[in-house]
Formats: sequence, structure tokens, C-alpha cells
Amino acid sequence: MSSQLLAGKRGVIFGALDDQSIAWQVAEVCAEQGAKFTLTNAPVALRFGSLNELGERLGAEIIPADATSIEDMENLFTKSEEILGGKLDFVLHAIGMSLNVRKGKTYTDLKHDWMLKTFDISAISFHKMCQVLYKGNHMADWGSILGLTYIAAQRTFPDYSEMAESKALLESFARSFGYHFGEKNHVRVNTISQSPTMTTAGKGVKGFDEFFGYADKMSPLGNAPAKACGEYCAMLFSDFTRYVTMQNLFHDGGFSSMGMNPKALQ
Amino acid sequence: MSSQLLAGKRGVIFGALDDQSIAWQVAEVCAEQGAKFTLTNAPVALRFGSLNELGERLGAEIIPADATSIEDMENLFTKSEEILGGKLDFVLHAIGMSLNVRKGKTYTDLKHDWMLKTFDISAISFHKMCQVLYKGNHMADWGSILGLTYIAAQRTFPDYSEMAESKALLESFARSFGYHFGEKNHVRVNTISQSPTMTTAGKGVKGFDEFFGYADKMSPLGNAPAKACGEYCAMLFSDFTRYVTMQNLFHDGGFSSMGMNPKALQ
Amino acid sequence: MSSQLLAGKRGVIFGALDDQSIAWQVAEVCAEQGAKFTLTNAPVALRFGSLNELGERLGAEIIPADATSIEDMENLFTKSEEILGGKLDFVLHAIGMSLNVRKGKTYTDLKHDWMLKTFDISAISFHKMCQVLYKGNHMADWGSILGLTYIAAQRTFPDYSEMAESKALLESFARSFGYHFGEKNHVRVNTISQSPTMTTAGKGVKGFDEFFGYADKMSPLGNAPAKACGEYCAMLFSDFTRYVTMQNLFHDGGFSSMGMNPKALQ
Amino acid sequence: MSSQLLAGKRGVIFGALDDQSIAWQVAEVCAEQGAKFTLTNAPVALRFGSLNELGERLGAEIIPADATSIEDMENLFTKSEEILGGKLDFVLHAIGMSLNVRKGKTYTDLKHDWMLKTFDISAISFHKMCQVLYKGNHMADWGSILGLTYIAAQRTFPDYSEMAESKALLESFARSFGYHFGEKNHVRVNTISQSPTMTTAGKGVKGFDEFFGYADKMSPLGNAPAKACGEYCAMLFSDFTRYVTMQNLFHDGGFSSMGMNPKALQ
Repeated sequence: MSSQLLAGKRGVIFGALDDQSIAWQVAEVCAEQGAKFTLTNAPVALRFGSLNELGERLGAEIIPADATSIEDMENLFTKSEEILGGKLDFVLHAIGMSLNVRKGKTYTDLKHDWMLKTFDISAISFHKMCQVLYKGNHMADWGSILGLTYIAAQRTFPDYSEMAESKALLESFARSFGYHFGEKNHVRVNTISQSPTMTTAGKGVKGFDEFFGYADKMSPLGNAPAKACGEYCAMLFSDFTRYVTMQNLFHDGGFSSMGMNPKALQ
Repeated sequence: MSSQLLAGKRGVIFGALDDQSIAWQVAEVCAEQGAKFTLTNAPVALRFGSLNELGERLGAEIIPADATSIEDMENLFTKSEEILGGKLDFVLHAIGMSLNVRKGKTYTDLKHDWMLKTFDISAISFHKMCQVLYKGNHMADWGSILGLTYIAAQRTFPDYSEMAESKALLESFARSFGYHFGEKNHVRVNTISQSPTMTTAGKGVKGFDEFFGYADKMSPLGNAPAKACGEYCAMLFSDFTRYVTMQNLFHDGGFSSMGMNPKALQ
Repeated sequence: MSSQLLAGKRGVIFGALDDQSIAWQVAEVCAEQGAKFTLTNAPVALRFGSLNELGERLGAEIIPADATSIEDMENLFTKSEEILGGKLDFVLHAIGMSLNVRKGKTYTDLKHDWMLKTFDISAISFHKMCQVLYKGNHMADWGSILGLTYIAAQRTFPDYSEMAESKALLESFARSFGYHFGEKNHVRVNTISQSPTMTTAGKGVKGFDEFFGYADKMSPLGNAPAKACGEYCAMLFSDFTRYVTMQNLFHDGGFSSMGMNPKALQ
Repeated sequence: MSSQLLAGKRGVIFGALDDQSIAWQVAEVCAEQGAKFTLTNAPVALRFGSLNELGERLGAEIIPADATSIEDMENLFTKSEEILGGKLDFVLHAIGMSLNVRKGKTYTDLKHDWMLKTFDISAISFHKMCQVLYKGNHMADWGSILGLTYIAAQRTFPDYSEMAESKALLESFARSFGYHFGEKNHVRVNTISQSPTMTTAGKGVKGFDEFFGYADKMSPLGNAPAKACGEYCAMLFSDFTRYVTMQNLFHDGGFSSMGMNPKALQ
């Protein structure tokens, strides 16, 4: 696409692990569209993934940060402003992990301590991030903050377990902060509700292949690929969407509006 | 009303404090309609409120229980079955409290430890309650579980602060357990999204009088009173609603479906 | 159920054809619960169905009326008040028919004249009915008006064709009139979004058996039967639901809140 | 913005009347972003508006067409393809008019013949347009069709009257055709639910100034201006949004997600 949609924009992208990550694709598109940004992930994720390769290729600095730590968030945004030379125009939050799912606890037999940790990592991190951005005045006027979510926040997919609640929380935080940031300096806050995606995280969920296939058949356009999600995120960071805020935007090939697709019954 | 809608039904009602509580009104209506039930609240609430008076009048035993404690929940439901002489047909969860609101922290400057505690009390208690009911087989076939919620789970009311997220969580838990309980033994799980109500808890929220008045004018029928909510809950415990599950039901005089009421502009 | 939930209530029930009709079941339950009412249907439907049998058994007079005719509506409600001895406490609208579906036109090749006729019968009849009730002051204070609808108003079921739009229209009319009737004299207006039901009308829709079975497997409680729908309608006519208005209420065994049910994939 | 987001794209834009029209702003942005398109409106609108000026300035041919006429639609798209040199990548439907509102009939005293005409102009025209595009294979693969709508389709704004139902219809048509077009050749169909806008049409609605002001105060970002809507439409025509379909997208400064804004109460 012959455009420089994000020319001059500065941002921070959370959650890229490897080239299957949605955040990785977002970074690729943002770079292509002229944005400058830093990349961040938890120290442990940096060891297992291949973020360095991406950072080097795109000329983006990597700042390790634990998204559940207020101090790490403060450091991340302060450093990012220094590196990028100004306030932030966009931030992507793409973080999610369920301890109970990982450890094989079923939904009717959860460990509630783990649930708290799941929420802290997958959702409260979004509030912490926004609070640090808000109190530190890190967002430029008319900036854009995005979180990635899933339709399990509205409808039940049993295998998604407590991640349903994590996403419901995340979407609520985005609405609430959309109000506060909008009134403060016209910053918008939205979530993108993405098709199931073949990421390293996604593939870990029990029954993932089945619901990936089911969702693909239910969706008139098929499941949205990670690359397309990157493009949609870029669009929501651009000046073409300045009055869209407090929304949960389905990027799912139509899945959310289908009651029954004859294809899926065959 | 000349009916014995809940004749022979057994239940547990959480959260009655004094005669302004919604749960108190639910208890009154359930008794009137022929149900037998136990009442429960946190030990500290029992000291401050007047639940004993209600229990004596209605002939309902009171079992103190901390809804965030699995042990207390196990004890509560086991004892309730013994007292009532069989499995439970209905349970009402009416619990909510925000530490950050109570302590005057604004939404953009929350203490996240307190937020976790708020969620544990106001929402995770619902998951714990359901999990104990589920694992202990305490619910009779075709039983009914209800939680009380507020439209802040869908739309932003700034003064409601982190209770918005608590309610989003609660509603998601209800949907998720609605699936599991439905498949297990036809138990339904729903939430009622009630008008702002002049309860002791409600009145503690900053700006409450303003949004009470605003909601009253926006609603074609006015705000739904606590007594009417009691009647609606009774109906959802009855056999007239056996196929309603995983729903968030607005009991709000029409507020949720109004875009603008000319009355509210004057 | 040992109750007389509708003792002393007067009503009008549209749309009963034979004992598979939802409206038929509503009439049975309303009679059981102590209501008095008239029955109505289009003259042609009266010839083909067995409404006389029902009317005689329940002691309900039958007043033929074309729901698309203002004159017929005026006559119906005036006569019903006379027969029942007072203003109306409840009205059920259960009418729907698609000319394009019946005549085998696909959604992408509709005849728009027929579409207008479909809308007139299936949805505008609801506006006409409400307008006549409103202008003629036929509704008692705190009365209840109900329409029957289907989730195709929110999500696409290709075989449901232009009935999706009919139901979207119907639900919108109910919301709009809910405002006007609420402000006028506290009358509530709602729609019930019912599971696919094996009625004479339902069975005529192409692919009906498939989506009946699919919906049944997706729903944790299974599809709601017509009898249960009758009970839910009765409860919405009762005084237990006086503050519920402008709502679309799913009576569907949980279908609307399911994203994927593992049962449906097998 | 230094971009050529729509370079090489061909389209048709309905409904521009004068420079206050949203469609006019859409045309301006699309031209700026490199698209080629034809403009269309009803013959009567062409006489009263200033579309010729726009067409000349942007080098866009004007093809008069009555959107309720299948023949006119066929002619419009056939000619547009000839003029633009290929199949269509995007179409904007921005048409709405209520006879009952214009003639001062209140919602509880509507003329139903006029209502049918209102629906035909404001909503069924969308189905006709899509049907002609579909049957004539006028849309290029991965093309984008948009309709403009308003939140009155979900919530009641009494003065909006039967336009609420028109928009509910329109949004339903978009979902339904989103399925058919998606399966056919990956064309997406969406609606944008725009803030109240000071257009010539908007200003004609009774009480418009009041609800414009109210909406502006309720929205954290204020009402979205027509220019911004043009930008949002352009983005939905671009390749950055290829997997978004069957959605109703709020472009409203956050209005739809606000329960109460303290600003609006003062």
C-alpha cells in the first residue's frame, strides 16, 4: 500500500514474542507506515522469543518490562519518550496468559490465587499501563491506545476458561479509561476483538484447533489473519480514526454477527 | 398477589443488611411466595445491620459467611441443605464493595492491591460460590442462581469507578457458569441489572444522588424500586423462567434502552 | 404451579393457530393463571387452524381481525374491553410471515413489493396495534405488551431471509413504544426472543430442522419449548415484572450467550 | 495526511447534497486519497443541492438515480463501471428521509403509508442497491460497502421517530448482505453509526439542537464532525480493514459507551 499513514508517529508496542505474534505483525505494519516505536515484553518472554531480531531489523529499541509492575511501566514510558523524542501517539497492549489454563485446572475447579494472577497479567496490566500513561502525561493529544481481546468476553467458549473474564475486565478498563483520557487530552482507547489466531499463545489453549476451524467456517470472510490485524491496528493509530473511542471493534471476518453459517454445519 | 410462586422451594440469600437492601426485599417476597431459605452475610455486616430482626420475623436461619472464603461457602451450603431439608432451588448473590471508592482514590490513581480485594469481594466471590455449589452438587435440577449487577458493566459512569470492572467480571462469571451448570443439571445462572437504588451501599458512592435523579428522569417508568427488584428475583427463581439462562436482565424502568429522554434535559 | 399469577387480568392474544403455536400455549398458561382474554387471528387463519376449539375450552371469545388494518384493530380492542369488562392488562403479538420465503425467492433476489407486505404483516402490524391501543386508551396502567421475535434480528441466519429484518423492525417498534407507553401510563413493552420452535410457521422455513438441531445443541438447556415460552409470557404479564420495559429478552436455553458449545461440534 | 490510501480504487458515493453533507466530506477525502468515483443523488436533490460544483472540482461524474428504483440502480452501476474502467471497490449509501417527521406526524399517530415510503427511501434502498450490485457482479473482490446510520437503532430518541426503525432495518440489511457478499467474493458490508451532524437533513429534525448539544457533552471527545466521518469511511474503504464485516461501527466520540457524563449534568 502506497501510504505513510503513521509518518511522524511515536509509539510503544507490547507483547511481540515471535513472528506468529499479532504484536509482531503490528510492529511490521507500523514500521512500514512510517512510525517510530519501542518494543517491550517481559524479561522471561525476551529470553524465549526472537524479539531482538525484529528490533534490529526495524530499528526499534527493546525495553524489557513487567507489565504488572508500576515501576517498570514508568521506566518504559519515560525511556520511550526519550528515545523517540516526544510524547506517545500510540500504544498497543497485547498481553494475556492464564495460569489455570496452563496448569490444566478446569473452570469449575479453578485456583483463585492463580485467577488473581491471571487477571493481573492479562487485564489489570492494562489499567496499570493506562494509569502510568495518564499520570505521567505520556500521551500526545489525540493519541490512540489499543488492547487486544476476544469475543469470549461476550459469549461462552468453555475452553477459554478464565480468559473470558480477563477479556471482560480488559474491555471494561478500556471503556473507563476512554472516558478519562478523552476528557483529558482527546486520547482514544479501544479494544480489537480478533479472530482466533495461530499464535504461540493461542495454540496452547485446549481445543484450539477445533474452535479455530469452527470460527473459520462460521465467518463469511474466514478468520482474520495476524497480518490483517496489524493493518487494522495501524489504522486505529492513524488520524483517520480520531473520533472512535471506548469501542470494542470486531476484526473477525464477520464471526460475531453470524448466527449460523450453513458451511459450518456440513 | 394471590400466588404461592415459590411453594416448596429452598434457597440461600446473600447480602441483606437492613431494610433498604435489595436482598432484604428479595427475602420478603420469597417468604411471601412460600419459599424457605437461609440468610447469610459477612460477620462484620451482621454486627452493623439488622439481619437478625429479618431472620426471626421470616423464620429464616442466619449463617455468617465470608463470601471470599471457600471454607465458609462449603459450610454455608452444607448447613443450608441440612436446615432446609434438601438441595437448593435458588441462590441470590448481592455483594459489592469497592475499597478504592471507599477510601477516596480516583479511577486514574487506584491502588491495585485494593482493586484485587474489591474484585475478590464483589465478583470472584460469585465464582467461588458457584464453584462450591457445583462441586458439592448443592443445586437441585432446574435451580436458579442470580447475581445483582449494574449497567456500568456496559457503559461508563465515572463515579462508579472500579465497580464497573467488578460488575463486568460478575456478569462474565454468570455466563460462564450458566454453561457449566446448564449442562450439568439444568441450573440457570443470570444477572439482574438493577436501577440505582437507595441502599446503604449505593448512597456511599460519590455523586450518587445526581445519577439517581438522572436515571430516574431518563427511565420512562422511573427507577425500579428495591421491592420491585425483589419481585423480579422471585420470578426468576420460579418455574416460569426455566429456560432463561446466561442473560443479563435489565430491571431499570427502561433506562438501558433510552438514548435521550426529553424529561432529563429540562 | 399453585399460583393465580394473573387473577383479575384482562388481555388479548394474537396469533394462535393450532396447538403447536406459541400463542396457543400462552393462552393455556394465562387461563390457568386466572386471566380472562379474547383471542384473535386473521380470518383466513381462523379457517385453517383450530382456534375455535381453544376458545371454547378456555371460555375465550374469538374476534377475527386483520392486524394490518387499523379499523380491525380498533374494533378488536373496543370489543375486547366490552367483553372483558375493562381496560387491557396485557396483549401478545405473535404474528410473522414472509412472502418471499414462502414463494422461494432467495435473499439476494427478493421482490421488494413482497418485502413491504412481509414487513406490514410481521412488524408494522405491531406499530399499528400499539398506535390503536395508545390513541384509544385501551391499556390499563402498568399493563404489559409483548411481541415474539427471534435472534436473527441480531445475527445472520441465512435461511431466515427477510424475516431477520422484520424482527429487527419489530424490536425497534417495541423499544419506541415502550418509551411512549411508559410515559403515558406506565405500560411496559418488550419482546421475547424465543428459541426456534416446531410451529406450523417455523417448519415452513427452509433448513429449519438443521438450525433447530444446531440451536438445541448449542444451548446448555436445549431449545426452549413453546409451553415454557407461554410461562415466560405469563410472567411478563404479571405484576412481578412491572419495571421491565423496552427489553428484548432471550428465552432460548442460553443460545444467545454461547460462542461455541463442544456438543455442537461433534 | 501524506498517504494515498485509496490509490487505484473505484467507487460510487450516494447522498451528497451540499458541503454540509457527510457524503460530501467522504467524497473530498476519497479524492484526496487517490480514489476515482462517481457521485449520485435523486434528481430532485440534484436540483436543490450543489453537487455539480463538487463533481467538477473533483473530476467526478454525476449520475442521477432514484435509489428506490431497481432500473436506476442498474443503470448507475453499469455506467459507473464504464466510466471508472472496472469493477467497484467501494460504495457509500448515505440516504435517509422520513415523511412522517417532515409532515409533523408524531410517533403515536403515524401514517403507515408514509412509513412504508420512509422505509423504502431510507433502508430498502440499501437492499435494492446491494441486490443490484450482487446480481450484476459489480463489486470487485475484497470491496467495501458502507451505510450511514444512527444510534437510534439501538436506543430511543423520541424525536427521531420512525427513522429509528429505518436505521434498525438498514443495519440488518447490512449484516445480511455482509454474509452473502462475504461468501460470494470477500466483499465486506458495514454501517457507521455517526454522531448527530449539522447537515441540512439533520437540522430538519425537531429538537435537533438539543440532542446535538446533549450528545456533544456526553461524548468524551465531543461529537464527531462530518469531516472526520469522511476519514473513517475512507479507512473502511481501504485495504487496512479487509476483515471487518457485518459490523455497526460507532463513530461518535464515545457517546455510545457513556452511561452518564458529569459534564452533561451541569
